[in-house]
Amino acid sequence: MNEVRIGIIGIGNMGSAHAANISKGEIPGLILTAVADRKESRRDWAKKELGEKVAVFLEGKELIESGLCDAVLVATPHYQHPELVISAFHHGLHALCEKPAGVYTKQVREMNEEADKQDKVFAMMFNQRTNPVYKMMKELVEGKTLGEIKRVNWIITDWYRTQAYYDSGDWRATWDGEGGGVLLNQCPHNLDLLQWICGLPKEVQAFCHNGKWHNIEVEDDVTAYFTLENGATGVFITTTGDAPGTNRFEITLEKGKLVCEEDELTLFELVENEREYCFTATEGFKKPEGVYREVELIGENSQHIGVLKAFTNRILTGSPLVADGREGIRGLMLSNAMHLSSWLNRPVTLPIEEDLFLTELNKRRNASVKKDNVKEATFDTKGSYGSKDGK
Amino acid sequence: MNEVRIGIIGIGNMGSAHAANISKGEIPGLILTAVADRKESRRDWAKKELGEKVAVFLEGKELIESGLCDAVLVATPHYQHPELVISAFHHGLHALCEKPAGVYTKQVREMNEEADKQDKVFAMMFNQRTNPVYKMMKELVEGKTLGEIKRVNWIITDWYRTQAYYDSGDWRATWDGEGGGVLLNQCPHNLDLLQWICGLPKEVQAFCHNGKWHNIEVEDDVTAYFTLENGATGVFITTTGDAPGTNRFEITLEKGKLVCEEDELTLFELVENEREYCFTATEGFKKPEGVYREVELIGENSQHIGVLKAFTNRILTGSPLVADGREGIRGLMLSNAMHLSSWLNRPVTLPIEEDLFLTELNKRRNASVKKDNVKEATFDTKGSYGSKDGK
Repeated sequence: MNEVRIGIIGIGNMGSAHAANISKGEIPGLILTAVADRKESRRDWAKKELGEKVAVFLEGKELIESGLCDAVLVATPHYQHPELVISAFHHGLHALCEKPAGVYTKQVREMNEEADKQDKVFAMMFNQRTNPVYKMMKELVEGKTLGEIKRVNWIITDWYRTQAYYDSGDWRATWDGEGGGVLLNQCPHNLDLLQWICGLPKEVQAFCHNGKWHNIEVEDDVTAYFTLENGATGVFITTTGDAPGTNRFEITLEKGKLVCEEDELTLFELVENEREYCFTATEGFKKPEGVYREVELIGENSQHIGVLKAFTNRILTGSPLVADGREGIRGLMLSNAMHLSSWLNRPVTLPIEEDLFLTELNKRRNASVKKDNVKEATFDTKGSYGSKDGK
Repeated sequence: MNEVRIGIIGIGNMGSAHAANISKGEIPGLILTAVADRKESRRDWAKKELGEKVAVFLEGKELIESGLCDAVLVATPHYQHPELVISAFHHGLHALCEKPAGVYTKQVREMNEEADKQDKVFAMMFNQRTNPVYKMMKELVEGKTLGEIKRVNWIITDWYRTQAYYDSGDWRATWDGEGGGVLLNQCPHNLDLLQWICGLPKEVQAFCHNGKWHNIEVEDDVTAYFTLENGATGVFITTTGDAPGTNRFEITLEKGKLVCEEDELTLFELVENEREYCFTATEGFKKPEGVYREVELIGENSQHIGVLKAFTNRILTGSPLVADGREGIRGLMLSNAMHLSSWLNRPVTLPIEEDLFLTELNKRRNASVKKDNVKEATFDTKGSYGSKDGK
């Protein structure tokens, strides 16, 4: 086997961008053989833009059963992710899943259990993990030379979206169609990076505001306070309503502070561990000494193409993935915890009570209102992935 | 009257710094005639350092009754502030009160009511209000050309203190001696600036951690989430345990964003109001356009000397104060709300239930443990006031 035939299920904003990248031959060894979409307008687009060699289906299951693909990329609305991935496994296909892994952890747990039963490659589209700045933060935190984490503040308010964005699809920003707002659509990357770099919090208290800045029924403004396993605290602040927003990720450690802003990483490294200095210093107001420096970043920021290449090479040669599919549940657990905490107006410990979450989600799904003012549109998402080099 | 004779009650870290500034003649028209301190070591220091013309008393009340002063500067432990200010008014003296105005709003309300009955000058030592960067932020927010506030994030974690600082006085960082930790000792400036620039929040939920980084019984780590009158949300994050800390005060408005960091102010000003753009734009992912610029700051950062000059001139010529004494209750209200919210583990609306706060505070005062390991010390506080130009 020296090439992988891939089918993309869901060719909206993201799926069509992936289709274009693969069609252009940007991923050696990966060939687009089929797409599926329930919207006629998107199927028409595919027939016109992707050429005759790419089969076009209405349903993802048809694509999976067609025999035209060795692997699928699932880029549908979120609720369908686990179901389609599981179906792909059952038909002997490898699966790459767009974020989020699903809408609720219980559903994703079933997907992961199914993955464990197969020998198929299963990956998550956590393209932000290819960003050298986050890779370096993970390396510096895990290396422990800076000591334990003391505080984490991530202000990630630059996920700006207009009302036109929300009006572009009937599933968007509804409890029944999407299952959440900024936490589920824009933030899966950030929540994954947060748990990837700092570990999964043990407790969360979140304040979600539904339709604060847009005419939508789900949250578009979130402030979450959390506690890590070691007792360090943090905040995660996000919205699709701020312009200009901020993307400033700060981690204070015992022996220094990391600040990531505008894809640049600054390290203030102390000469000694603050925890020791605090109890040995004879002065009251003096601070431990240290040095600021910009951290040199290594490697390219390959983003979606990097994830697709790694997925392809894993299938062909067994080389490492950017993110194993089973890891998608971790950021989703954090996202679910934020929703649940806000719904119940109390702190929530992780792992969450999955049945309670589902009950609360279903209350909202049942009350969800079908949109009657949709102006169908597919937007150019370039530059909207929270990374300057995002493709 | 062409000069004001002032007495300083409490000549610890702050009082002795004020005494030195006044003695050096830095404030035209202001003459130091007396000091009072309950500690013998501080009275010995005063006799040695301040010269024979400055009378030295054990008790503040003796100083107030001495006839040697037209005004007092109260720089004692916080619980005594209102009592001494009220006593000064009763003896016909003007009063300048160090921050905080007191420990609980009920006590400060009595002080303010007493001030209203007098024609004496009453001022608060809110020296940070002289900082051109905060004055400019207030002007830009109140000017409304940037529209309404949407979000406020203040990470003010650069109030670093060592264990030696806390061990330097038996009243420090105890519920009974000081009445609180970082909120009451270090943050009164920031809480005052927050309410001065953005208005007083209507609701607060805070997470205070007692003795998280030091051997103390009060809080040295706080994350507070709040809501302003117009529904905008914010966080206030502070600690005396982070090194290096951060001082980054960000206000997002409808037509721009202000970021104050390291005493520099950046403004990103939008071409149009985001609230209009959001609902008229036809693109989904595009952001409203705008321009970044560093804001030119006007005037000197006169800090404590500026407050002392304004206080003196108010007495002599009736010119404006930096901060009226009656305004001290506002930041304290916010501080009390944060404590109360954390103690009760629930959101608290402002104005707070003052009796409930006092009941909860007294529980903690009654359980407060007297320190047995005090190493008395007076530290040089230069550069520790959260402002690069602080004197």
